[in-house]
Amino acid sequence: MTDKSRKLKVAIVGGGLVGALTACYFAKRGHEVRVYEYRADIRVEDSRGQSIDLALSTRGREALREVGLEDLLVNRHGIPMRGRMIHERDGTLREIIYDSVKKNCIYSVSRKYLNEVLLNAAETYPGLELHFNEKLVDVDLDRGKMKLLNTRTKVTSNVEADLIVGADGAYSTVRKSMIKRPLFDFSQTYIEHGYIEIYIPPSRDNDFAMSDGNLHIWPRGEFMMIALPNEDRSFTGNLFAPFETLRALDTPENLLNFYEDQFPDVLPLIGREKLVKDFFSSEPKTLISIKCKPYHVGKTALIIGDAAHAMVPFYAQGMNAGFEDVIILDKLMELYDSDLSKVLPAFSETRCQNAHAICDLAMYNYVEMRDLVRKKSFILRKYFDTVLYWLFPNTWLPLYSTVHFSRMTFRDCIENRAWQDKIIGQSLWLTGAGLLAIVSVFTKKWFS
Amino acid sequence: MTDKSRKLKVAIVGGGLVGALTACYFAKRGHEVRVYEYRADIRVEDSRGQSIDLALSTRGREALREVGLEDLLVNRHGIPMRGRMIHERDGTLREIIYDSVKKNCIYSVSRKYLNEVLLNAAETYPGLELHFNEKLVDVDLDRGKMKLLNTRTKVTSNVEADLIVGADGAYSTVRKSMIKRPLFDFSQTYIEHGYIEIYIPPSRDNDFAMSDGNLHIWPRGEFMMIALPNEDRSFTGNLFAPFETLRALDTPENLLNFYEDQFPDVLPLIGREKLVKDFFSSEPKTLISIKCKPYHVGKTALIIGDAAHAMVPFYAQGMNAGFEDVIILDKLMELYDSDLSKVLPAFSETRCQNAHAICDLAMYNYVEMRDLVRKKSFILRKYFDTVLYWLFPNTWLPLYSTVHFSRMTFRDCIENRAWQDKIIGQSLWLTGAGLLAIVSVFTKKWFS
Repeated sequence: MTDKSRKLKVAIVGGGLVGALTACYFAKRGHEVRVYEYRADIRVEDSRGQSIDLALSTRGREALREVGLEDLLVNRHGIPMRGRMIHERDGTLREIIYDSVKKNCIYSVSRKYLNEVLLNAAETYPGLELHFNEKLVDVDLDRGKMKLLNTRTKVTSNVEADLIVGADGAYSTVRKSMIKRPLFDFSQTYIEHGYIEIYIPPSRDNDFAMSDGNLHIWPRGEFMMIALPNEDRSFTGNLFAPFETLRALDTPENLLNFYEDQFPDVLPLIGREKLVKDFFSSEPKTLISIKCKPYHVGKTALIIGDAAHAMVPFYAQGMNAGFEDVIILDKLMELYDSDLSKVLPAFSETRCQNAHAICDLAMYNYVEMRDLVRKKSFILRKYFDTVLYWLFPNTWLPLYSTVHFSRMTFRDCIENRAWQDKIIGQSLWLTGAGLLAIVSVFTKKWFS
Repeated sequence: MTDKSRKLKVAIVGGGLVGALTACYFAKRGHEVRVYEYRADIRVEDSRGQSIDLALSTRGREALREVGLEDLLVNRHGIPMRGRMIHERDGTLREIIYDSVKKNCIYSVSRKYLNEVLLNAAETYPGLELHFNEKLVDVDLDRGKMKLLNTRTKVTSNVEADLIVGADGAYSTVRKSMIKRPLFDFSQTYIEHGYIEIYIPPSRDNDFAMSDGNLHIWPRGEFMMIALPNEDRSFTGNLFAPFETLRALDTPENLLNFYEDQFPDVLPLIGREKLVKDFFSSEPKTLISIKCKPYHVGKTALIIGDAAHAMVPFYAQGMNAGFEDVIILDKLMELYDSDLSKVLPAFSETRCQNAHAICDLAMYNYVEMRDLVRKKSFILRKYFDTVLYWLFPNTWLPLYSTVHFSRMTFRDCIENRAWQDKIIGQSLWLTGAGLLAIVSVFTKKWFS
């Protein structure tokens, strides 16, 4: 190690998915890592956290590969989903394959299982310690100092580090401290839709009640239900709808009528009693989108993952983008020989704009999932995409493929799509003009 | 008074311009009003606050009229500015009149003087108390409870109110409490430009060193200087520029060279020594834009003025828009007979979108002031506007007039401008087509 790449003290706030993975990467480089997690150790005590199932794809897989966990998650505990399965109101099914050319899949994984695996992996590194029930009560980002309160023992401790990494999620305490600083741009936007988790048990013969190779969608325009397969052959479903729609379902009768009317095929799979119980056992959850800039303070503090760019879940990129943060941070540590005064600004420089792009894409995809997939224009466009992708598998990558099955920067994903829209627009225009010309020539010939 | 319009306890956080005016309005309706200001009483102790001079126009004037202060501020202590005075680098002057048809002016007023006048006015109402040096340390917005710390006596007190109004400015503590609530949208955006205040003293014969009937602008594309006249015949100038431009002026020599090169006409008016002293006596200040939604919590709390919608100062609407908040709130109190459960949601409903619009307009106007005013296209468009305004003084209101000299909602100001752009675009197109037709007819005639 050169002087600059000396052993750094890295304090990571948050032991969720991104926090635990970040810890592994820093420990792997030989740094001294401490993780401070507010909640209890989920491997010991079950604490309810976020619920939406995870879909693992290329960005996340590459990050897991580096710490030897890709195979475990993808091939042994991930359930491949090869496409969307659209459920119409009359029960008609229509499959939209994600990648009909290269056959890429996204993988349904359990958040809790993945988090446990990452914590176990973290503990295998020497120089890495995990601390649970540690609540961040005060932080001095410029000096790398934190005050923590153990919520069990009520003991307060002071921690000093060369680098504080805030991986403490959408409601990040580290970010709250950044917001007060001059020139820190920040926005939080709630969408006017909430969601409620609905469990779909295995069938009577203990099999999946629907195709397990799909992400199931019941698109209904203003609202939708989705479901992802679990390892135990159940599905975790989520109903997304405007809060007022959810509020209107205020009695078991209203709820059951709504399901009979909108989702008749899935109602018997859930079970009427179970649906009522699940639905009324908790309040609808909110969905927030967070953008900010920059992600760092000097050479001493950084935010990462949801703390930096929480997004609505509709492109299934929250975890994948968070894991990609870790890869990019690691590459910069390599490039700048662990010189944090260069690494952290470079991270903000490259990552802010791309994170803003995926936040926007995630917002857009909600409209696609709940509404556009039903439209003829969408199906036609998807058909064009598939044909062109089949003809030019290396140059014509559809948007979904660039986001899920490539490491193209999210900004480039958007630009690539804009370029494709332009090409298709021009082609349609030329085709139309050509057809008109042919028709006019023949008309002249016939009638002259 | 009906039952609903009973005497309310109103606690106002912040005794700045908007806080003091809000207090007057509530007290005038017979409510019991307490104002809690974090700073000392500016009428007794001079405490430096925000610096940029104020330009009072229609919205602000109307609000002051209701409490009998319009005449004092406009006719006795305001300095009318009839237009922009553009200073070119070679010293050429060009005046752009704000309203050449109805002769409306905007009025330069001193922030400190106006605040003092408002505090004095507030104290004349029975049932209104002003408390200074009171720092808000905790607030329960749902229950209307606050904990305050007197920064002089160190005594803590608890306050309960029917309504808490946060008029505590761009870095509002009341708003910080709202941000934590679900479904509260919020964004803070800093522009990458800062500003430094530069004082321009009266001339040797104790007169204004430049025309006092103008807002002076030195537009230089990426940066600019502006100056507003003061009652003592001085001007308060401000240099706005990217932080890196300001940082590059790191020695007196660099600064003086910069002024000699860019603002040669004003340098002798400021004085070289004075310029160096002013410039290096403080750090460049930042400029923030705040948008959020909603502005209220239940029927117990509200934010108003900069706390709700701080904006960059380039449309001189921060105070005017804040004062208009007070008019609108008062009208809603009247309409709903002081029923806060109706007043507060209605305020958010109408005001959020309009405040977002003026925040956007203020951002746009920075580009207009520092760059567009120099462009031929801008001058041509301004000419069109002036002619059409002269022809149709009641239907063709230029954007600047709708913002400054009307009470048109800010959203309508933007829509009105978009409509005008469309009309002008179509007219130009038709004129062009007409000319082409004439030319082709004559060409045919001549050459056939």
